[in-house]
Amino acid sequence: MSVSSDANAERLRLDAPADALTRLYFIFGSPIAHVRAPVVWSTLMKRYGVNALMLPADVHSDHVDVAIAGVKDVANVDGMIFTMPHKFTAMKHADVLTARAQRIGSINLLRRRADGSWEGDNVDGTGFVDGLRADGVRLKDAHVTMHGCGGVGRSIGWSLATQDIARLTVFDLDETRAQALADAIRQDSKALIEVGTMADGSDMREVDVAINASPLGLDADDALPFAVDRLPPHAVVADVIMDPHMTALLNAASARGLKVHHGRNMMNHAMPVAASFFGLDDAFDWNGASVQA
Amino acid sequence: MSVSSDANAERLRLDAPADALTRLYFIFGSPIAHVRAPVVWSTLMKRYGVNALMLPADVHSDHVDVAIAGVKDVANVDGMIFTMPHKFTAMKHADVLTARAQRIGSINLLRRRADGSWEGDNVDGTGFVDGLRADGVRLKDAHVTMHGCGGVGRSIGWSLATQDIARLTVFDLDETRAQALADAIRQDSKALIEVGTMADGSDMREVDVAINASPLGLDADDALPFAVDRLPPHAVVADVIMDPHMTALLNAASARGLKVHHGRNMMNHAMPVAASFFGLDDAFDWNGASVQA
Repeated sequence: MSVSSDANAERLRLDAPADALTRLYFIFGSPIAHVRAPVVWSTLMKRYGVNALMLPADVHSDHVDVAIAGVKDVANVDGMIFTMPHKFTAMKHADVLTARAQRIGSINLLRRRADGSWEGDNVDGTGFVDGLRADGVRLKDAHVTMHGCGGVGRSIGWSLATQDIARLTVFDLDETRAQALADAIRQDSKALIEVGTMADGSDMREVDVAINASPLGLDADDALPFAVDRLPPHAVVADVIMDPHMTALLNAASARGLKVHHGRNMMNHAMPVAASFFGLDDAFDWNGASVQA
Repeated sequence: MSVSSDANAERLRLDAPADALTRLYFIFGSPIAHVRAPVVWSTLMKRYGVNALMLPADVHSDHVDVAIAGVKDVANVDGMIFTMPHKFTAMKHADVLTARAQRIGSINLLRRRADGSWEGDNVDGTGFVDGLRADGVRLKDAHVTMHGCGGVGRSIGWSLATQDIARLTVFDLDETRAQALADAIRQDSKALIEVGTMADGSDMREVDVAINASPLGLDADDALPFAVDRLPPHAVVADVIMDPHMTALLNAASARGLKVHHGRNMMNHAMPVAASFFGLDDAFDWNGASVQA
């Protein structure tokens, strides 16, 4: 049975993956099996002596409101991350929203503030733009196209619109969605914000950065979100899809000799922004960290 | 920043305290800082390669219904433990109750069954009785007294009543509570079940095992739950209080040369019963385990 002496109690406590004082963070998603946040965050927390864990929360859309409300009532929960398909639903659980989350219309982060209220933010787009810049992609005065104006597309669209780009053309199979995004971000932007039509690839010759923010590419059978053959030689093709690492789109762009930008960059660069939002950035030694996100 | 090569990804995954497939268990309590379950369970899970964690859930009574409902809606949560003050409230969140939980009127365990329903059980008393027997305390034909008929007292009372004891006398400052327990357990017992009066210590001379199941002893200033000076020399004095390890009651009994039985035995022996209820007992190598609970 489990009875023993007191001898190894202290050793066990130090080695334990959790104790009574562990602070909890959750990533809500459905499906959840592919998410990397628990490994990446929990490993950093352990490495830097933060007594906290990032845990998977496999929650179906039918149950997400009850689940979020319940998890908020656990006092040692400090924050939540939301991935597909919960980013829109989660927003109504925030008592306060950052300006960008309001404009984007969804959240991927929720944190407990000192007064007990919950603040929502959306840092997908910020992470994406940070990733582009870190990868040496020039955005100043650029003409950028983005295909897909759903959850992550809205976040990236807002972040691009607030950069020093010259022009952003947004596309969606559902043109009303593209129009809604253009309307929402135009007021925050000095760039020309316009809605493209999916059939019209004619002006791809002037595009500097072409982004896929749609789900096309998740399945090997998916059509390309856009054709790459009319892009100029200096164009960069970026994808938000992380798995596969090389999507059909990126393969096609690479075959044409274009620079490609992998989906994983977004998550890698959103993470420091999220850590700052959660108040954990001082604990994490980013220069020393080399965590594979 | 957090960007790196793929090189150490697999090592990190193996070392990570949590990943996307981690199954979750929670212990609900308020306060929570003193509970040992997260360290003990999580350490065993890690040691035996069970990808699961036992996590603290610091939940105030005002919020516990919402919190339990929410945690149940997280599909990778397999079970919950309830400690003070949630054992009564938690019961209504069970779809099914074990026979003993029904009789005891509270639960300390809740597990998700294969059909998705939740089953409640109460193993405090079973753990307590197992602990007594493992400590060599003879219960056959014994006269047992128990002071305190609240949550843990009801569980211990039911477990004692279903043993081969001769007589069980239950006491409580609130005599209706003692009467309610006696009435609930009498129908399951072959022993004489009776309610004692707190003022009356006269028949302590015939007592073989005297148990404190009240909170008296948690504070150093507390009065003794009962006097030990009239107990016979062979009597055993048992306490449910784990901290302090030596309560004033146990000190007094020890000073009189009586055998004492520490509160920690109950938790140590309830744990294998709980592990079995959670379906984890096959994974845990109890013979090899020497976890300090």
